[in-house]
Amino acid sequence: MRITLNDEELITLDEARERLSKLIRRQVVEVNLLDSLNFISAEEVYANINLPPFSRSTVDGYAIKSELSPGDFAVIDKVEIGEAKEVKVEGRQAVEVDTGSILPHGANAVVKVEDTSRRENHLLVGRKVNPWDNVAIIGSDISKSTMILGKGERISAYKVSLLASQGISKVRVYKPMSVSIIITGNEIIEPGVNSYFAPKIFDSNGYFLQAAFKEMGSTVIRRVYVTDVREKVEKEILTALNDSDLIITVGGTSAGERDYVNKILIEKGTIIFYGIDIKPGKPTIASLINDKVVVGLPGNPVSATIVFEELVKSILDFTERREIIANSLNEIKGDRRRDAFLPAILLRGKSQVYAYLPPFDSYMIGAFTLSDGYVHLRRGESVNVNEPVSVKLINTFSGYTVIGEEEPSLSFSGISRILYAGSSVACEAMKRGVGDVLIISSEICEPKEFDFEIKRKIVRVGSGESVGYIDGVGISKFVDSPSIKVKSPSAALSLSEDKTVYLPSTFGIKGEEVGEETIYVVINESELKGKVGVRRNL
Amino acid sequence: MRITLNDEELITLDEARERLSKLIRRQVVEVNLLDSLNFISAEEVYANINLPPFSRSTVDGYAIKSELSPGDFAVIDKVEIGEAKEVKVEGRQAVEVDTGSILPHGANAVVKVEDTSRRENHLLVGRKVNPWDNVAIIGSDISKSTMILGKGERISAYKVSLLASQGISKVRVYKPMSVSIIITGNEIIEPGVNSYFAPKIFDSNGYFLQAAFKEMGSTVIRRVYVTDVREKVEKEILTALNDSDLIITVGGTSAGERDYVNKILIEKGTIIFYGIDIKPGKPTIASLINDKVVVGLPGNPVSATIVFEELVKSILDFTERREIIANSLNEIKGDRRRDAFLPAILLRGKSQVYAYLPPFDSYMIGAFTLSDGYVHLRRGESVNVNEPVSVKLINTFSGYTVIGEEEPSLSFSGISRILYAGSSVACEAMKRGVGDVLIISSEICEPKEFDFEIKRKIVRVGSGESVGYIDGVGISKFVDSPSIKVKSPSAALSLSEDKTVYLPSTFGIKGEEVGEETIYVVINESELKGKVGVRRNL
Repeated sequence: MRITLNDEELITLDEARERLSKLIRRQVVEVNLLDSLNFISAEEVYANINLPPFSRSTVDGYAIKSELSPGDFAVIDKVEIGEAKEVKVEGRQAVEVDTGSILPHGANAVVKVEDTSRRENHLLVGRKVNPWDNVAIIGSDISKSTMILGKGERISAYKVSLLASQGISKVRVYKPMSVSIIITGNEIIEPGVNSYFAPKIFDSNGYFLQAAFKEMGSTVIRRVYVTDVREKVEKEILTALNDSDLIITVGGTSAGERDYVNKILIEKGTIIFYGIDIKPGKPTIASLINDKVVVGLPGNPVSATIVFEELVKSILDFTERREIIANSLNEIKGDRRRDAFLPAILLRGKSQVYAYLPPFDSYMIGAFTLSDGYVHLRRGESVNVNEPVSVKLINTFSGYTVIGEEEPSLSFSGISRILYAGSSVACEAMKRGVGDVLIISSEICEPKEFDFEIKRKIVRVGSGESVGYIDGVGISKFVDSPSIKVKSPSAALSLSEDKTVYLPSTFGIKGEEVGEETIYVVINESELKGKVGVRRNL
Repeated sequence: MRITLNDEELITLDEARERLSKLIRRQVVEVNLLDSLNFISAEEVYANINLPPFSRSTVDGYAIKSELSPGDFAVIDKVEIGEAKEVKVEGRQAVEVDTGSILPHGANAVVKVEDTSRRENHLLVGRKVNPWDNVAIIGSDISKSTMILGKGERISAYKVSLLASQGISKVRVYKPMSVSIIITGNEIIEPGVNSYFAPKIFDSNGYFLQAAFKEMGSTVIRRVYVTDVREKVEKEILTALNDSDLIITVGGTSAGERDYVNKILIEKGTIIFYGIDIKPGKPTIASLINDKVVVGLPGNPVSATIVFEELVKSILDFTERREIIANSLNEIKGDRRRDAFLPAILLRGKSQVYAYLPPFDSYMIGAFTLSDGYVHLRRGESVNVNEPVSVKLINTFSGYTVIGEEEPSLSFSGISRILYAGSSVACEAMKRGVGDVLIISSEICEPKEFDFEIKRKIVRVGSGESVGYIDGVGISKFVDSPSIKVKSPSAALSLSEDKTVYLPSTFGIKGEEVGEETIYVVINESELKGKVGVRRNL
């Protein structure tokens, strides 16, 4: 039996979100403030005391009536920080105060100790003091009944601080959910259990989901792997129903004969939806079984990730992932028929952030996880060069990135990411003066300034159909009518067994010379000068 | 004894960071991949297998030689996903494949099942198939030896996914530090222990630090409170030296007579530095005692927070906090003599993000923690309206914000933050079409379009000196020569006991009428239409 998903039966992401959020019930629990970090607030919280709670000195000095300055004053007392002393300033009296001491009655300013001279109880204030100088006035920071925590807000360390400053030590949050993760698929092997053997695939979905749920504060009760045997899949789902608030399955939701998750979810429960109008992520299914929500994610890792973010996390977390608005370095086309999600690389400029969207296909989980975030393009939407694009962050977007051509003789230190994107994007970045390190081929553009250059020959090796490169990679110019295009010489090398491959001589591979190019190294980030070098004795 | 810090003895933040980072030793430990979430990677990791690890089908269909399409083919076998079957396609042969199946030898494309018709083993391919159609080519996503994790990088759920896809199940990270937090000060009371009584202050620093260390994965061994008694402070520090990798004290670092932390750190250890050229945060001290680093943060919560972020966290975390580049809505002046740190409110526009920097004084921990992030201005640096400014994020910058005048008859739902910033910023936001909900006084600007309006009278109550409002608040126009300026009517109300206060009649307070203003409510965010209302029967 094959179940096919017709385009006209798909529902929108918004509709899927709405249906699911109505059925996922969240319990509210009161927790200690310190345990609330990163949990989602279940109520609005308002200030119940003013900040500052009383008018107080912001310096070490003397509280006086400002209108009597400059002149002589008599020091009548001292009020230390934290001390509740009934003392009143009248006329030319002064009271010594600490930073943070309550302002004595009658005083309306504090003069800094540096601006006075004192002998015993005689104080000389040498300058004119303005009313309320060096005083933090009651309520001037936060006044009573100010909203200090929103409902549905993720509680940050900063909000813990603010709540503590109000004396609040308990807070009501949404109880973390107990989640079961069931990974299906004959092709899946678990990292750390086996060494790699083809044609298996290491599980990344289960690891991603477990980490992502952990990040949200949820409890992952189990992460189990099951082969595509209907009885086994069914047994795992039924077991999970006993002790989980939410069950997530991965794989088995599509039209394949061995796809059983969809069949089980249809038979055993009430379908909430099947099929979402997005790319990737279409074969997503959700069902209510024994009053519990089971979400069947597609097995393709990019699909599983996107659907997790946009559907599951967006419901459980309320808040959206952080977005950065960036200026696009390249033209981006969405999908004509469905909403599309594409990974983006961010480059920081002086006055704005730039986004580069690498060539992408839905199976490229590597390109996706190495990016800084992703772009959500509505059906038919596209973005032109220099247009703003909103990027949802997935990684920290910090550290330095090398971007451009792959050149094996280069060595780097202090770099957190090397992206073989070819020269086109590096040339665009160069024009705008952004990008930490750019590696550019003379075949694509000629930099006016660069730090150093490497000459390399291009050699042809092997036989059979030709492996070429995506546009923007320098070597692409040397390959006539290739039947495949790859991103980098390393990727070409993986195909060299039965195909003709064009490689830089710096790979140390001998072959027929077909040309020469110059690789320019442009180091924009001053901290990296001297940290990019050339390896000897390749 | 008073210890004074002269400006010429201060060191820069960079210098402080460098001295401290040399002395804070980090151990490296190997942990299970799933336990590595949010830890800092201690090594670069490179791909050891290609992704995809073999060329595979991206659809359910038939593997063929593309150059023979369209036409008839003979189905000779089936290769399921995960199955290792030695099968070779020759001539007009086809092999049935699943999404994810390994591409059989000899085939160079897959035709989708929808584009074929089959009767028994006769397959008709109705269309021309291009070479490598529907094939994910080996190494085309990530080729072997690609850097997949940087050293010093915070490990995200996405990086857990990527490492798992390589079969990596262990990773080397910097071992979390064991930290002791010692809060000093006679004025401090612990949240949840006492109800509030003046002139005490609820501790927020200890809570902030514990949450922030927890967020970094560090273990907080203890958080203790100690009054300003030298022997007690010394005892706590010496106790903490026994079992902590790092000791953080708060308070007692300044020139006050009861400031003992600085004295103890000077006497008992070797001073690493004392005094940093920043505002706030100057009286920060660090000392090496028994070969362990003790950092003495200033007691002022904003100072403690900034120094924690910029010094402690930036060393332990390697990576910088995320920054957003925003367009400034107002003019911002830094400090003439020191680097300054100022909170910023972010407003999302269609093509860029805007930043508003509220009036700020170093004691305003409330304004700081309610902001989205902060701006670091170098000595003497200033930012003009419409200039880019880099904001380091501290909160999630999500959810909806109300910004403008305080009007007590308004009720909101679905809002995560209400900022009483007055009308000027709301008018600037309106001009640019940003801001979720804007509350604007007719005294500052007149919106062309608004959702509804509220007429309110301004009344004067009380006697004594006049409490006014900061520029930009509508009511400020009604107060002649005030001696204090506050941000909102609620803040003014806190001062009404012995002063003349000007309030909107909507506070339900009777007094002499001095004028009238109109409050305009502008709802830009369509989701909030109907969620802003007026309370009846005030």
